Amino acid sequence: MNVKNKPYQTIWLHPDDATIVQTIDQRLLPFEFRIVDLKCFEDARSAIADMVVRGAPLIGVTAAYGIYLALLDHHAHEDLTSYLQECVHRLTATRPTAINLSHAVDHSLHAILREKNLNAKIDVALKTAQDMAKDETEACRKIGQYGLAVIENLGKKKKNRVVNILTHCNAGWLACIDYGTATAPVYLAHDRGIKVHVWVDETRPRNQGARLTAWELSQHGVPHTLITDNTGGLLMQQGKVDIVIVGSDRTTLSGNVVNKIGTYLKALAAKDNNIPFYVALPSSSIDPSLQDELEGIPIEERNREEVEFVEGLTERGLERVRICKEETTVLNPGFDITPARLVTGLITERGICEANKESILSLFPELVTSAENQRSED
Amino acid sequence: MNVKNKPYQTIWLHPDDATIVQTIDQRLLPFEFRIVDLKCFEDARSAIADMVVRGAPLIGVTAAYGIYLALLDHHAHEDLTSYLQECVHRLTATRPTAINLSHAVDHSLHAILREKNLNAKIDVALKTAQDMAKDETEACRKIGQYGLAVIENLGKKKKNRVVNILTHCNAGWLACIDYGTATAPVYLAHDRGIKVHVWVDETRPRNQGARLTAWELSQHGVPHTLITDNTGGLLMQQGKVDIVIVGSDRTTLSGNVVNKIGTYLKALAAKDNNIPFYVALPSSSIDPSLQDELEGIPIEERNREEVEFVEGLTERGLERVRICKEETTVLNPGFDITPARLVTGLITERGICEANKESILSLFPELVTSAENQRSED
Repeated sequence: MNVKNKPYQTIWLHPDDATIVQTIDQRLLPFEFRIVDLKCFEDARSAIADMVVRGAPLIGVTAAYGIYLALLDHHAHEDLTSYLQECVHRLTATRPTAINLSHAVDHSLHAILREKNLNAKIDVALKTAQDMAKDETEACRKIGQYGLAVIENLGKKKKNRVVNILTHCNAGWLACIDYGTATAPVYLAHDRGIKVHVWVDETRPRNQGARLTAWELSQHGVPHTLITDNTGGLLMQQGKVDIVIVGSDRTTLSGNVVNKIGTYLKALAAKDNNIPFYVALPSSSIDPSLQDELEGIPIEERNREEVEFVEGLTERGLERVRICKEETTVLNPGFDITPARLVTGLITERGICEANKESILSLFPELVTSAENQRSED
Repeated sequence: MNVKNKPYQTIWLHPDDATIVQTIDQRLLPFEFRIVDLKCFEDARSAIADMVVRGAPLIGVTAAYGIYLALLDHHAHEDLTSYLQECVHRLTATRPTAINLSHAVDHSLHAILREKNLNAKIDVALKTAQDMAKDETEACRKIGQYGLAVIENLGKKKKNRVVNILTHCNAGWLACIDYGTATAPVYLAHDRGIKVHVWVDETRPRNQGARLTAWELSQHGVPHTLITDNTGGLLMQQGKVDIVIVGSDRTTLSGNVVNKIGTYLKALAAKDNNIPFYVALPSSSIDPSLQDELEGIPIEERNREEVEFVEGLTERGLERVRICKEETTVLNPGFDITPARLVTGLITERGICEANKESILSLFPELVTSAENQRSED
């Protein structure tokens, strides 16, 4: 999407040096737009771990580029297979809830191990990352088209008055490669001339809504209003929300949605006010190994400092302030689980389905096999 | 309650100078404990408007002291009645959602207008404020006793394992004169040796949970954990919350609860997980003029800067950081409405009742009359 009227994706190979991958340092947004070079495996790993990049699809592609960079880093005296396995292990340890990450590195590893010599392995690792980026972009574009129809219908029902969309966190193009997941229908609707307005949850503790979603919507000219995470319920009670669209970090085959902490609360409020609650997701974030049992889903516990401190701009630049006493006990789980019963529909790259196994498998029959494989491996 | 092992209330007459009212500057907590002097009407008014003091009961008592200070300020050449009415108007304009404020100033005004000479008026204004503080303290103590029984029962059910209580915002002693409303049962349970632990919602935008509730619980030695406002739903899904207790800024006769924005979302999550959701309130915050119609309740819209900036401690002292671009549109409603159907019970100074008119009136039959008076005045 556009940044200062120039089209960007979130990650790409350096145009003049194929040993360098480039990405946007999202930690500096919305105050500074800085491109950073990933020159080695460790750059890619720490970019994921330190949230230079974030968002399930972008994490996956960054990890695939990380494996490519790992191959470039490899010293001849080390055993390649165990070296790569160590890299895979270190990558997956960064963000345990992101299913795309393990998908991506597994996929890359399989492709690499099929090749005999190092150069072919390097080539296939790069191609895997680039294909993955292309696939994710195309998936988001299609999610946008299917979701557009939903917004279009709401617009017709409202006789062309503004359609108010609430979203949580950043499931925008910054979280993906382009278009975004939850934002793709919004961008496409806006481009089509449908009047839309987005309620942007600030999304504590890291404020991805305030810092990323608001910024990318403004760059694209989409009207939006920033609110605290506490506010969405009131707005729904007041009839000021027509639809909720969020992303997903991991979706189970039965339609339970793991997403940024707080998503569940908005789903409850949507249900209580008869407002459609949609989840936009590429099928890469469906985890067929998880079916009914909510207990099996790992919920990443993140650093307490994310809660203790809030980062933002002062006259001196980006700084952080402490909002509680140092001795205060803090808990910071990163995700919650929205039960399938609260989800109106899943907007995927193959169409919209209901949040249940039958409906998901009708769009993605190949997931049956992977679910069965997964179970037999367990 | 204790601060550094010395008992305090939130507002009191200066021990050596009866023309000065003293209070705690809550804007500096938890980082600095500073007592401020209110020497004139304007000091009291701005203390409410600028949130030096906050919390429904404390706002009410501060407003009553404000009327007392207004009388001390009065110049003989002004017409006293119109002067006082102007003061009342300026006080009620500061925080339109706080019903205690208008109750308090109306009550004080009636008492003053009954007296003939200025000295008697001054005396009765002071006595009104002091009696109100006493009544609020006693109401909170009783709320604590009734709520204690609920926590005690949960403790027995859990075979003396820790009872986990979730609270939103600060309905603690800092919001009242002493004990608090939502916290009163917690303090009494803790003092009684019942194992309790409090999940403290940080409560954006002003972070009263992080800054006030966590601080006052720590001063009293009550175990607690700070979480973001997004987190409570997950904790309830995980069985880590046994009861929710919140305060109320205004409760309708039919049991709908106006409280800090975000309360409604926690009530929905409690309902979804079969967790009891209690509201602790002195009857002074029941508004008999509001019955069924949620639309009639004014929702205060606060300054956009509360959302745009987060205040906290840096090496240089209290500072604030900007979390979004200056040009971002922001909405900042202060309260939401929890429908009576989500409320397990109201813990009042006369016992626990259900959140409906019949049950409320069984404890507070005098509210029928005031409801009828109110309607005939409308």
